[in-house]
Amino acid sequence: MSASLPATARFITFEGIDGSGKSTQIKRLAEHLAGRGYDVVVTREPGGSPGAEEIRALVLQGDPDRWSAETEILLFTAARRDHLERTILPALAAGKIVLCDRFADSTRMYQGLSRGNLRALVDQLHDLMIGHEPDLTVLIDMDPALGLTRALSRRTADERFEAFGEDLQTAMRQGFLDLAEEFADRFRVIDGGRDMDAVAADIATLVDGALA
Amino acid sequence: MSASLPATARFITFEGIDGSGKSTQIKRLAEHLAGRGYDVVVTREPGGSPGAEEIRALVLQGDPDRWSAETEILLFTAARRDHLERTILPALAAGKIVLCDRFADSTRMYQGLSRGNLRALVDQLHDLMIGHEPDLTVLIDMDPALGLTRALSRRTADERFEAFGEDLQTAMRQGFLDLAEEFADRFRVIDGGRDMDAVAADIATLVDGALA
Repeated sequence: MSASLPATARFITFEGIDGSGKSTQIKRLAEHLAGRGYDVVVTREPGGSPGAEEIRALVLQGDPDRWSAETEILLFTAARRDHLERTILPALAAGKIVLCDRFADSTRMYQGLSRGNLRALVDQLHDLMIGHEPDLTVLIDMDPALGLTRALSRRTADERFEAFGEDLQTAMRQGFLDLAEEFADRFRVIDGGRDMDAVAADIATLVDGALA
Repeated sequence: MSASLPATARFITFEGIDGSGKSTQIKRLAEHLAGRGYDVVVTREPGGSPGAEEIRALVLQGDPDRWSAETEILLFTAARRDHLERTILPALAAGKIVLCDRFADSTRMYQGLSRGNLRALVDQLHDLMIGHEPDLTVLIDMDPALGLTRALSRRTADERFEAFGEDLQTAMRQGFLDLAEEFADRFRVIDGGRDMDAVAADIATLVDGALA
């Protein structure tokens, strides 16, 4: 985990189980970076561009079994392609920093875990149609019981992906930790079980270092 | 073009330029086969299952430039996967004959021609996510000027794919003829410029032979 990050790390993704505090920490980091004079774009997946948001709605609404795992992967890849072309790459080309809540690692983890082992298919599709990885991925690691308590407190009825129990949260946490080992060059694991100011300070230090 | 078709050819697709008479001929063939006692399912692409129809609507409505060619290919592949899983494969498993208006060959032709040469990408995605070919593909070949006249007479404002001129129709015709050569084992070319009864009789003879 000690490989050095690219000095120009500008495409930064956040991963972690539901309730790990990703969106709060992204907001904090965006404020910190704006205060240092950077132009920052905050975005999220699935979604992040008008077309991708429409695809997101098509995937996430309705009967959970309306799409097979394979069709769902194709739809998420279509949304990611649109998001990349219309939001992420133009922002990077304009010299901005992109902070993205979830990216391909979430697909790798979810699809590999929750609906049969489709990780190989996810990887082949990613290589063929996306072909971009973040410069830096911040994994906010979190005790599953704590994450679940936080997630359930803000759960919305039409978002299927949060309708999971603690066993699955535990498996997801491990899935992300495994990805952090697999992609050790760009992953950094932050302990999210602490006071949110402490977490924000750690992330700011990490990113400042990568932008130095 | 003289390779023999599989004796149990049950997945039959129709290809051809707009106005070539595919839907009329599919209807005629379905009636013919039903009269011979076969269970027949008639379907179409893009669409052909409830999910695929929703994806079709997402792709075909709105600004023509709302999706890049690559995103559009991913969306059509998602629709095709759903159509295959929910409509085509269950019908074939139940012993029915499936007649489908357009399938992967239309994607190969359109995307290779009209929006830059993406044929290699289309093929890789097809191999990875679809992996099925028809047993028999009937190409209704047609003079582009005649096809265009017929197509324009029933054109609807919200279907982008028919908003093409004669030069493009000519290129599309050649694209299909090239595919018929490339996949000579399953393609059969029918002259669609004749009286529709004559065309229907040829297609019935061809399919009867493949089901004998």
